[in-house]
Amino acid sequence: MGMSPRYQKVAIIGLGLIGGSLGFAAKRGDLAGHVVGYASSEATRARGLERGFIDEAAVSVTEAVKDADLIILCTPVGALEALAIEMKPVLKAGATVTDVGSVKAAVVRDVGPHIPAGVHFIPGHPVAGTEESGPDAGFAELFEGRWTILTPVEGSDENAVRKLELFWEACGAKVAVMEVGQHDLTLAITSHVPHLIAYTMVGVAADLEKVTQADVTKFAAGGFRDLTRIAASDPTMWRDIFLNNKDATIEMLGRFIEELMALQRAIRWDDGQTLFERFTRTRAIRRQIIAAGQDSPAPNFGRNPQHLTPAAKDEK
Amino acid sequence: MGMSPRYQKVAIIGLGLIGGSLGFAAKRGDLAGHVVGYASSEATRARGLERGFIDEAAVSVTEAVKDADLIILCTPVGALEALAIEMKPVLKAGATVTDVGSVKAAVVRDVGPHIPAGVHFIPGHPVAGTEESGPDAGFAELFEGRWTILTPVEGSDENAVRKLELFWEACGAKVAVMEVGQHDLTLAITSHVPHLIAYTMVGVAADLEKVTQADVTKFAAGGFRDLTRIAASDPTMWRDIFLNNKDATIEMLGRFIEELMALQRAIRWDDGQTLFERFTRTRAIRRQIIAAGQDSPAPNFGRNPQHLTPAAKDEK
Repeated sequence: MGMSPRYQKVAIIGLGLIGGSLGFAAKRGDLAGHVVGYASSEATRARGLERGFIDEAAVSVTEAVKDADLIILCTPVGALEALAIEMKPVLKAGATVTDVGSVKAAVVRDVGPHIPAGVHFIPGHPVAGTEESGPDAGFAELFEGRWTILTPVEGSDENAVRKLELFWEACGAKVAVMEVGQHDLTLAITSHVPHLIAYTMVGVAADLEKVTQADVTKFAAGGFRDLTRIAASDPTMWRDIFLNNKDATIEMLGRFIEELMALQRAIRWDDGQTLFERFTRTRAIRRQIIAAGQDSPAPNFGRNPQHLTPAAKDEK
Repeated sequence: MGMSPRYQKVAIIGLGLIGGSLGFAAKRGDLAGHVVGYASSEATRARGLERGFIDEAAVSVTEAVKDADLIILCTPVGALEALAIEMKPVLKAGATVTDVGSVKAAVVRDVGPHIPAGVHFIPGHPVAGTEESGPDAGFAELFEGRWTILTPVEGSDENAVRKLELFWEACGAKVAVMEVGQHDLTLAITSHVPHLIAYTMVGVAADLEKVTQADVTKFAAGGFRDLTRIAASDPTMWRDIFLNNKDATIEMLGRFIEELMALQRAIRWDDGQTLFERFTRTRAIRRQIIAAGQDSPAPNFGRNPQHLTPAAKDEK
């Protein structure tokens, strides 16, 4: 008999985009006997029950975690250490604790020391999301075709890791196992620095004396609007990511700035050849991402009218 | 009787994404008695005829332009001066010459001096596009709901401008009239700098020793993939844009780098308050763009599975 991806009691701490989506995915796949959720806001807990991605709302972290077989921490990473301290006394022997944070070395540093012997700590990170947040944002299909990275720590139990992999796969994800430092460096380039430059660009456009915000809005289809989507992501979550992946972010940002300066210099000195070469190379990367199923092949992400279905056109 | 948006003979020079889309839009709206197209490549001309966005393929610029009532220059802006010189002897009195270039001061500089008296020169720029290029990329709905900017020059004929506005509106666009310098500054922020930073970021990701391209591709859904779309745009077109909007691009790039340094410093010094404030502000801009109809309100540009129609799901 193969190993089951199913846990008897699953506790989800933090009921936002990821917590909600995990609850829905676990229920869709019958991956949990019982899903209990906790969020510090009562309104959020009520909304979780109402939308049905949790079976029960706990009024405290300890109540949620008690007897749980799988505990998934879905809060911004800045909150994890306090959570780990709070739940430590009630963790059941043999339980698995995981998280969904976008940084991993800091999570190992903050949570690891508070995990008792006999409890499995397996940090994780689903590379999936939207610009929305809160208990209304989640949906069962969020992880479909996306990668979830697990970064087991020294001495992680092999069976516990394997079971968590099966759980994620049953949620629709592909699973990769990486070393924490490599995770943080890789995500700095595929996620953290892209978000930082998007936030920066959108912030600059809000502050100009010579161009009005009305004109920025009107002419956003020239490329700017693409950046505004990721710059609309949850501010608390992103603050915590940058504060907790400082070295890798600053390293990758250094590369970015160096390269940007090279292109600025090419513009200043009319070096069309350099510009053309750089701009040609980047097309290949887009093609790879589409070939790997990590983005839509439809032009403009499919948002042009001719790609809309008749139903979607009627909604316009 | 109101003014008609219709021109008897329309010549489209350059049969790529914009030229093709204009041909289709003109035919859909019956905005042209006859559409003649020219492209330097014979294969492109043949494809234009085959797809049907032109009625006739001319074998030279002069043949296309002769007797035309509206000439729309749809090549990269670096090619415009030579085109203007070539067509000058055959332009018909009373004809309108326009273009679709993403920069306008350089077009006025390069094309303006070669327009004979009695011919109306009205530079234009549809703020619309996709990352695709070539004669297969165009479609009639490209301009739907997007803005086209006209930058009439000193002494432009009012009726000629009005007629061109009606033509663009009949293609589905909204029309704004701006001064050339203001256009170039505005587009530097809503289009040119966003493209430059996207090209830069994608270029950096291609060149790392510590992170493989395979991992960049796998984990692109963390935000990076959004940048790869605009970094897949036509290299010749973008080289010409930067070479021809140097001052505004460098000015706006200076602001961007200054702000990026401020955020880098906030990360280095654990200044979470600054990060949180900047990241909160940028959400409002996204909302404005959606409220103005310049982007889809669907999370993730609508590319998540639950937003796909059953037909699109079947295609997967």
